[in-house]
Amino acid sequence: MLSLESDYIKGAHEKILERLCEINMEPQPGYGSDRYCEQAGEKIKAACGCPDAEVFFLAGGTQTNAVVIDSMIQSFEGVVAADSGHVSIHEAGAVEFTGHKVLTIPGKDGKIQPENLRTFLEDFWKDGNHEHMVFPGMVYLSYPTEFGTLYSLRELEDISEICKKYQIPLYLDGARLGYGLMSRECDLTLQDIARICDVFYIGGTKVGALFGEAVVFPKHNTPKHFINRIKQHGALFAKGWLMGVQFDVLFTDGLYFEISKKAVELAQQMKEGFAQRGYEFFIDSPTNQQFIVLENKEMERLKEKVKFSFWEKCDDSHTAVRFAASWAATESEIRELFEILDEMRN
Amino acid sequence: MLSLESDYIKGAHEKILERLCEINMEPQPGYGSDRYCEQAGEKIKAACGCPDAEVFFLAGGTQTNAVVIDSMIQSFEGVVAADSGHVSIHEAGAVEFTGHKVLTIPGKDGKIQPENLRTFLEDFWKDGNHEHMVFPGMVYLSYPTEFGTLYSLRELEDISEICKKYQIPLYLDGARLGYGLMSRECDLTLQDIARICDVFYIGGTKVGALFGEAVVFPKHNTPKHFINRIKQHGALFAKGWLMGVQFDVLFTDGLYFEISKKAVELAQQMKEGFAQRGYEFFIDSPTNQQFIVLENKEMERLKEKVKFSFWEKCDDSHTAVRFAASWAATESEIRELFEILDEMRN
Amino acid sequence: MLSLESDYIKGAHEKILERLCEINMEPQPGYGSDRYCEQAGEKIKAACGCPDAEVFFLAGGTQTNAVVIDSMIQSFEGVVAADSGHVSIHEAGAVEFTGHKVLTIPGKDGKIQPENLRTFLEDFWKDGNHEHMVFPGMVYLSYPTEFGTLYSLRELEDISEICKKYQIPLYLDGARLGYGLMSRECDLTLQDIARICDVFYIGGTKVGALFGEAVVFPKHNTPKHFINRIKQHGALFAKGWLMGVQFDVLFTDGLYFEISKKAVELAQQMKEGFAQRGYEFFIDSPTNQQFIVLENKEMERLKEKVKFSFWEKCDDSHTAVRFAASWAATESEIRELFEILDEMRN
Amino acid sequence: MLSLESDYIKGAHEKILERLCEINMEPQPGYGSDRYCEQAGEKIKAACGCPDAEVFFLAGGTQTNAVVIDSMIQSFEGVVAADSGHVSIHEAGAVEFTGHKVLTIPGKDGKIQPENLRTFLEDFWKDGNHEHMVFPGMVYLSYPTEFGTLYSLRELEDISEICKKYQIPLYLDGARLGYGLMSRECDLTLQDIARICDVFYIGGTKVGALFGEAVVFPKHNTPKHFINRIKQHGALFAKGWLMGVQFDVLFTDGLYFEISKKAVELAQQMKEGFAQRGYEFFIDSPTNQQFIVLENKEMERLKEKVKFSFWEKCDDSHTAVRFAASWAATESEIRELFEILDEMRN
Repeated sequence: MLSLESDYIKGAHEKILERLCEINMEPQPGYGSDRYCEQAGEKIKAACGCPDAEVFFLAGGTQTNAVVIDSMIQSFEGVVAADSGHVSIHEAGAVEFTGHKVLTIPGKDGKIQPENLRTFLEDFWKDGNHEHMVFPGMVYLSYPTEFGTLYSLRELEDISEICKKYQIPLYLDGARLGYGLMSRECDLTLQDIARICDVFYIGGTKVGALFGEAVVFPKHNTPKHFINRIKQHGALFAKGWLMGVQFDVLFTDGLYFEISKKAVELAQQMKEGFAQRGYEFFIDSPTNQQFIVLENKEMERLKEKVKFSFWEKCDDSHTAVRFAASWAATESEIRELFEILDEMRN
Repeated sequence: MLSLESDYIKGAHEKILERLCEINMEPQPGYGSDRYCEQAGEKIKAACGCPDAEVFFLAGGTQTNAVVIDSMIQSFEGVVAADSGHVSIHEAGAVEFTGHKVLTIPGKDGKIQPENLRTFLEDFWKDGNHEHMVFPGMVYLSYPTEFGTLYSLRELEDISEICKKYQIPLYLDGARLGYGLMSRECDLTLQDIARICDVFYIGGTKVGALFGEAVVFPKHNTPKHFINRIKQHGALFAKGWLMGVQFDVLFTDGLYFEISKKAVELAQQMKEGFAQRGYEFFIDSPTNQQFIVLENKEMERLKEKVKFSFWEKCDDSHTAVRFAASWAATESEIRELFEILDEMRN
Repeated sequence: MLSLESDYIKGAHEKILERLCEINMEPQPGYGSDRYCEQAGEKIKAACGCPDAEVFFLAGGTQTNAVVIDSMIQSFEGVVAADSGHVSIHEAGAVEFTGHKVLTIPGKDGKIQPENLRTFLEDFWKDGNHEHMVFPGMVYLSYPTEFGTLYSLRELEDISEICKKYQIPLYLDGARLGYGLMSRECDLTLQDIARICDVFYIGGTKVGALFGEAVVFPKHNTPKHFINRIKQHGALFAKGWLMGVQFDVLFTDGLYFEISKKAVELAQQMKEGFAQRGYEFFIDSPTNQQFIVLENKEMERLKEKVKFSFWEKCDDSHTAVRFAASWAATESEIRELFEILDEMRN
Repeated sequence: MLSLESDYIKGAHEKILERLCEINMEPQPGYGSDRYCEQAGEKIKAACGCPDAEVFFLAGGTQTNAVVIDSMIQSFEGVVAADSGHVSIHEAGAVEFTGHKVLTIPGKDGKIQPENLRTFLEDFWKDGNHEHMVFPGMVYLSYPTEFGTLYSLRELEDISEICKKYQIPLYLDGARLGYGLMSRECDLTLQDIARICDVFYIGGTKVGALFGEAVVFPKHNTPKHFINRIKQHGALFAKGWLMGVQFDVLFTDGLYFEISKKAVELAQQMKEGFAQRGYEFFIDSPTNQQFIVLENKEMERLKEKVKFSFWEKCDDSHTAVRFAASWAATESEIRELFEILDEMRN
């Protein structure tokens, strides 16, 4: 069975496993106070061009979103997101669990349109009385989005400017950050993100690590006693060094970018393969996830040989599905996918 | 530098690392729906003598306590714990963060005394009006306790009977469960725990795993939609199989018990070593943690060569400290500890 | 200055004040355990045709919504509401504060369309995996809606049937219930509501009382230890009898319905007055609130003599505003409104 | 039946009722933005000798405590209280419901001992690592306490100094403030409280009002967007002016102090009456609540003619009970109490 259903179906890059094995019996201080976390932090700060940043490691994306959002906004504030935003749809209400509303605005291809955001905030603030409303306290966006799409540098800068005008932080969820930055269509760098955003995370779970997300506060703006807040959320990892080691490896000699690039290239091969065969795309994704519309019967037959993800029903006879190329995908897998498809179609 | 400060200073048992390396590139379904979690669950249920139990894996102890407690009690209920209980003192208010009060009763040597619990519950219920009070909705205890002490089978059964009388579940925090069960003074088995408790967890983080705690619901009493609750708490691990694999190894051929036993035996060697040299014990612990009273100057000198944990000030010139023997400790480390001590004292 | 900006600008019906003065020095037991609460409850149950119902009094609408919703749904559940629903827009996130998401679906004229609700629930449940989503745990609707509109008996029954199919309770927010039931266009009764809904409240604050809302659980379905839950939310009123007395008066000899009817009739006079003068209606409301589109300059001039509520901007030169006729409004006030308007327009 | 069981068994002082009747049909803006709230605020600020203070009105004590505490501390902080503190024992976990731990320290006669507080805070801060602990973020005390006892000016100043040293606010719960300030043993004034405390409330519900508590922030320290926070807690009263009017009356010509004084004097007559008859006092209270130890049989007989509150069991044959003199108590009631007692004893 060929597995292309997501980018978190395999363990870790071999260099990570090797390193974890090497240092396995070295005693380490707990809770992220070890030298590997320190070292990984330094490398990430260098990669961000941001020597003054502060870096923390958390174990998963939903957890990271809940901790970061809850820590950076006031109790009477909510977080603005596109209506397709992960925090709104697919985190089982983890943000609301911490007491905050997710304020959704209509997205386009998974992205917040700067003009929609501007209108939303203008409308909120121009009316005199907000005492019965949830204040917009932060803007959340994902890069790449849940649909694999990318913001342009210009779009991010526009959104950032709007945030600055209304004095609310901009938070970028980078669960698949590498796959965005290494896309041919990406016109920005990690340094741009560190310059533009007030907080963001560099996803490890989906990009080569066993688990782990690196939260970066680039502007001396770490919430006070952030470790306590993490602990209070049940999110403080005892053996924090496990994440330090992993990110240390990922940010040594550009491994994070290298493996991301390979995955995106394979995804583009997939994209071309589907296009050549005349498949309809649910959305045009320049990153590692491809969303294809399949005729239901074909989908059922394909299921017997390939694992992919159900995305959504298009109509009674068609369904959008997702194929993902991860850091661990191989050219032979892509070849196999199309061999199976071609065989099925003959 | 000799490291004996805690039982979570090293990675994982070599068999676990090997297995993680072996299956690293096998594609797995996410969120604990894989066959390793299934397999580990089966082995744990067998070890518990409880084929009908349900088993879930979470990444850390505080997280597990918050999720389990919040999921099993009503919003107007709190959890009863000894005043030294981990949930009350050392989890940064993670239980209160979920809206529940920790109702403390005076403990003895870290343990809830059955008679204190009975009095507490009797007093609560005999007064007619509890509408302005937090209902006791669960009893929490740790085994071994935060002081390394153990409940006897009789004590646990008494506590369980009281819980049954008041129809509230009994929850056992087994962060160091192996080190309790393998103590010479332990008069109960894992099966006893599964029979007596309504929910408990088998700690992996401190007992041979990189991370992971196995929550067991032995009585068809898993909270409805428990996975959603875990997700809502930000605690659903994407690559759940990483924990499945680890517990599968730990519960194959009794590895969990074997490595626990070794740690406890080394701790007893430590205990005897301290006793022979006339050290005062802060508390009499039959498990893998030893609490010793050191004269402050000696403590300062010892710090230069050995890592241990500060526990609490005893008086102006004495301090209680903790030495822990983990699954990864060795006889030579214990020997080295006493060589250093003996050298210092000459 | 003529005041028509809302229906909570004056104190209480004179009979209520009289009764409060009469019993002022009678000692009463606290927290709603008095005979006036009992008596008012009996009268409300009779009016609902529901002798087995249970009735509780809370001091305000937002509080009532938060307590009822949080008490009736599970932690992993949210409440489904129209996107214009009060709980979603105008309660400062009080529902999210208790940890629950408000799941919005597009409304029409402030109402949930049964077919939209059906689709929403079908879509949620047909997809196999909801472990990362917030479960729909209740349906919330307001009657009349925030736009003054009314559900027909048929619509309510359809919604109720859908709720039953998915086994979730239907909650009706009756902050202005009297003004709905006494509308000429209303085709249902309080008994219908008690039969159809799983929980609802009869608003007092906007309908003749100083304050107070009567929550009715008609189906032996009061959440366990509901008083404790109220207290935990900070919503248990010490002198509960103050609300008992008020609802006792309101439900004696049909006063609640009589004063509601008068208000709705005055509102219909307003409506006709605006219609005769060619004003555009923002929405067609058959109840006590009227929403009129004013040209901005006219609006500014009118503001000098009449208080009304800003509703929303329509375009650069027009604004929708609200005029409300409460239980305390008089025919002469309506006359005065149109005298002012007519004078302005000449 | 003679009713002395508490100080919230009757409605409001007649002057308040009169005024509420007078202004009943005056239209008012909602949510506390009316001129009566303004006026009452001014009078309270004058009485506090604090022209720059900000004053808000909430409907009840538990609600006030939850809103004030949750608004003034950070999410990772808790509130320090005596173990007998109302917020810890008798508010059904309303503080924990907002996510914060109540950190209890042993009290004496219901009071925080300054030296205990100092030790608690010193101990917390001297240990280097608090990342797993709840930070003390505020000190809560009640004046008078739940046992009717009073802090001396010196004690309050000592506590305030400790709070300043650790930079945490001091909060005084004045549910019965008048009965404290008017006690013969009180050596401080309302101005002292406004000078010493960072926030406090002046109780109305138990001191002459139908309901209402006036929260005072004397030091330009109102939490940002406090109205939103109140709304989010479900605690924003629609007809806020009802509380404004009541406090306006209470703080006109010293009515609040006058009626408090009368109540305390009657309580002292009670105290003397009990003392003369040789009754044992459960605690020595200089305020309006008296705590008497009754032999159980006598208690049962007394219950037939007098209402009092159960306080706690003393031993198998004795019980502590509470008699309260409120603003509405009369000399003839006190006389009647002793006539009943004397008759019973003959």
